[in-house]
Amino acid sequence: MIAEFSVTPIGSGVHVGGYVTKAVQIVHDSGLKYALNPMGTVVEGPWEEVMAVIKRCNDELLKDCERLSFVIKVDSRRGPSPPMEDKVRSVNDRLER
Amino acid sequence: MIAEFSVTPIGSGVHVGGYVTKAVQIVHDSGLKYALNPMGTVVEGPWEEVMAVIKRCNDELLKDCERLSFVIKVDSRRGPSPPMEDKVRSVNDRLER
Amino acid sequence: MIAEFSVTPIGSGVHVGGYVTKAVQIVHDSGLKYALNPMGTVVEGPWEEVMAVIKRCNDELLKDCERLSFVIKVDSRRGPSPPMEDKVRSVNDRLER
Amino acid sequence: MIAEFSVTPIGSGVHVGGYVTKAVQIVHDSGLKYALNPMGTVVEGPWEEVMAVIKRCNDELLKDCERLSFVIKVDSRRGPSPPMEDKVRSVNDRLER
Repeated sequence: MIAEFSVTPIGSGVHVGGYVTKAVQIVHDSGLKYALNPMGTVVEGPWEEVMAVIKRCNDELLKDCERLSFVIKVDSRRGPSPPMEDKVRSVNDRLER
Repeated sequence: MIAEFSVTPIGSGVHVGGYVTKAVQIVHDSGLKYALNPMGTVVEGPWEEVMAVIKRCNDELLKDCERLSFVIKVDSRRGPSPPMEDKVRSVNDRLER
Repeated sequence: MIAEFSVTPIGSGVHVGGYVTKAVQIVHDSGLKYALNPMGTVVEGPWEEVMAVIKRCNDELLKDCERLSFVIKVDSRRGPSPPMEDKVRSVNDRLER
Repeated sequence: MIAEFSVTPIGSGVHVGGYVTKAVQIVHDSGLKYALNPMGTVVEGPWEEVMAVIKRCNDELLKDCERLSFVIKVDSRRGPSPPMEDKVRSVNDRLER
């Protein structure tokens, strides 16, 4: 499946980039395919592995932050998902510029 | 933690109530505390249990639907979360009507 | 349409109930049909009116908060939407308890 | 502000790329700064302009689709938002690879 998630520390100040970096580092170290965008991180892999990575982000960030808000969006298919870059390419190919 | 999730079958017609009911039945049968609202289901419990229920919804609905879109929002705290009904009551108590 | 939204102040402390109440008060005062749940507020009405209420929440809360995160989920139909309570009732009627 | 949104046609088949392209074309034609990712489109601009573009997507897609589901995530600040690419760069610069 392909999932996008973002994590927002609540009550940890207005500059949350350090915490976000920590979460992305955990995704990076997982070995799963991922891509960063300005509003979240897209991760590709089996459901359980992707969710385990997000749980690890939760556990690690709760060491520093009292409260976290996650938004997770999942695109799940019966068969294998096309690779995440195909979704962007397929739209880009059809755009009239 | 407290999580809200919704599942949208893609390509399974415009009337998706039957699939949504199937998902809510799975939540109901899990024994976890939950509450239905017009846009999703709020579930309260430990991270792993809540996520396992959502995964079960995914696995069961994929038997009938080719593709699913999930939106999951998580409110996660270092210590125990206050019960979900407290969040509504605390706002309701302060509203001026 | 029917929309659910939640607003999270970033960098305004861990107890955000006061800000949430302010947002719900704005929804209440709008006269639109709404329902509170533990993770957000569901509002029913024409697209422009619902979005205007959310914008008002943004403008008012930015007076007190430096940064806000909104999550908005919209269920939009070509014709009229069934009233929000129908969505819950239709699922509840089919649940086996 | 910076917003990410995605639109999912419900009941319009499992291949929704054509509709998504139509929405992205509307964003592109708006002249607002935007970036596509595998799970959504990030748009930067004043609240009213960004929301007007999303509304246009709704109106145009409802001509072809009976029902749409939108997820909109907003990062809103009292002052000017840093440009969207800064958010990714700031995390990338801190990652240990």
